[in-house]
Amino acid sequence: MIKELQQYIFTELEKLHLPSSPSNLYEPIGYTIALGGKRLRPVLVLLGCELVGGKKEDAIYPALGIELFHNFTLLHDDIMDNAPLRRNKPTVHAKWNANIAILSGDVLFTIASQQIAKAAAPVLAEVLSVYFKVAVDVCEGQQLDMDFESLDNLEIPDYIEMIRLKTAVLLGASLQIGALCGNASKEIAEQLYEIGVELGLAFQLQDDLLDAFGNEETFGKQVGGDIISNKKTWLKLRALEKANASQKQELIKWYSLKEFDAPEKVNAVKQIFTDLDLPNEANNLIRRYYTSALNKLEDLHLTESGKTGILEFTESLKTRVN
Amino acid sequence: MIKELQQYIFTELEKLHLPSSPSNLYEPIGYTIALGGKRLRPVLVLLGCELVGGKKEDAIYPALGIELFHNFTLLHDDIMDNAPLRRNKPTVHAKWNANIAILSGDVLFTIASQQIAKAAAPVLAEVLSVYFKVAVDVCEGQQLDMDFESLDNLEIPDYIEMIRLKTAVLLGASLQIGALCGNASKEIAEQLYEIGVELGLAFQLQDDLLDAFGNEETFGKQVGGDIISNKKTWLKLRALEKANASQKQELIKWYSLKEFDAPEKVNAVKQIFTDLDLPNEANNLIRRYYTSALNKLEDLHLTESGKTGILEFTESLKTRVN
Repeated sequence: MIKELQQYIFTELEKLHLPSSPSNLYEPIGYTIALGGKRLRPVLVLLGCELVGGKKEDAIYPALGIELFHNFTLLHDDIMDNAPLRRNKPTVHAKWNANIAILSGDVLFTIASQQIAKAAAPVLAEVLSVYFKVAVDVCEGQQLDMDFESLDNLEIPDYIEMIRLKTAVLLGASLQIGALCGNASKEIAEQLYEIGVELGLAFQLQDDLLDAFGNEETFGKQVGGDIISNKKTWLKLRALEKANASQKQELIKWYSLKEFDAPEKVNAVKQIFTDLDLPNEANNLIRRYYTSALNKLEDLHLTESGKTGILEFTESLKTRVN
Repeated sequence: MIKELQQYIFTELEKLHLPSSPSNLYEPIGYTIALGGKRLRPVLVLLGCELVGGKKEDAIYPALGIELFHNFTLLHDDIMDNAPLRRNKPTVHAKWNANIAILSGDVLFTIASQQIAKAAAPVLAEVLSVYFKVAVDVCEGQQLDMDFESLDNLEIPDYIEMIRLKTAVLLGASLQIGALCGNASKEIAEQLYEIGVELGLAFQLQDDLLDAFGNEETFGKQVGGDIISNKKTWLKLRALEKANASQKQELIKWYSLKEFDAPEKVNAVKQIFTDLDLPNEANNLIRRYYTSALNKLEDLHLTESGKTGILEFTESLKTRVN
């Protein structure tokens, strides 16, 4: 079922007619869309619609809008994070330049919003309200992420709040918008939002875990990137919280070295993470979020086909390797 | 009348409730809005509504949205143009940094769109369609402006097309959106768009003229900035077209010097502009656009109060000194 929805989204994305000129504006957008990805968020939009008995056609344009919005955030985040690569290809600001990345991102955001605005008239105002709210939240999450770089004394609840805003709420809004397009009540749509947020938290924590413990061959990007860049992830914050004196001293040593051998640092930090049993603890936390989301979904008495879809979606997330 | 509308917009802008945290995201937005400006575009939205017999309250939120959208474009343009000052104050990227300017611009665009999305349900889809279309156009205009920097053989029609997209269409869309909010037919709203575009072309050409020939004391920014930076304005392109061999040689000399005394360059280039009678020629062109716009407006048989407002608006543009 998920594969079919992904295929549907792929086909409809192909049908988007982008202008070709000015080429410095539109080539980066075509390039960004073609980088691909799992199209998780638009799948959730379609599943949100399916869950409340709607037809996927009623949610397809908002689904595309959510995917394009997500791509826009990646495009601008990559400038701010000075990231050279995305899915093993040069980022837009690296391949063109920062100005082109800013402006083509602005247009991509606009094109995304145009797709959202194709929602049916009776639900349009509510869909837009959810969409713009989540857009603000995602920007706030990115700002917190940047602020955290220079912040000491960060605690795990701060980190959870940051990933909630930066990542999880968009998964929540995807389900919510899909449900609204399927003519769900506002209440049901809001409950689906909460479920999506929990899926999103699980998703991001799993991302952090894969970044440290993923398989280099299947992960698709450099394993240990977060460790190398001292990124304040759940793993790092929890390790500093749980470590004994000597472990803490070693962690702080690695995180403060200006020059180091990258694989050596990654292995040493991972060893401490493992000694502290963090992979198990993280997996338990992730499982708790998934279970809570699925239990809440069960309570809502929505369509069986939709629930099957969400289960399949969740299974594919749980077992993912990248 | 215009003053009252400006005051109304000022009051409603004050009532916008911006969050305070994360402060790195919202302080630059408050700062940008507080920089002020003439609020021309939201005045046009309200006048568009008035022209078709609507109440200004029906158009106020889209009017605020247009003003905030305009402020967003300035914020991002200032990064791309590496501009240190705006209205004699440091730009956001100069006062904070480029990342903060990118992200607070993204949020400002979102907040602008939220205001637009408050248009009444019966006109919402059409208002959004005009708004997102003009947002794309403005980005295309900015891209052309950047592309033109490294383009030889630029001709006046290329320049007019660039300023049409970068500046004029937003004035057109302001009138159009106001008219839609006042329940005008799509046809009338589109005709008001064309009128607004002509006002916008006149406005921008006058801006170019003020940049070279404005009074240093009343202009509020460095007179001759366009000349110093070799900006391809109507004045420069027309001068190169109209100059005799020796004038052309002198122009090219000034435009290719890497080091120069700024006032000397400004005076020399302005002298050639004057010798070529360009201020008069530009003023005639500007007057033709204004006259054409007002004639088209007369043909539409709209409210007398609205027409009086547009006349007053146009007069204030014609006689402006900054």
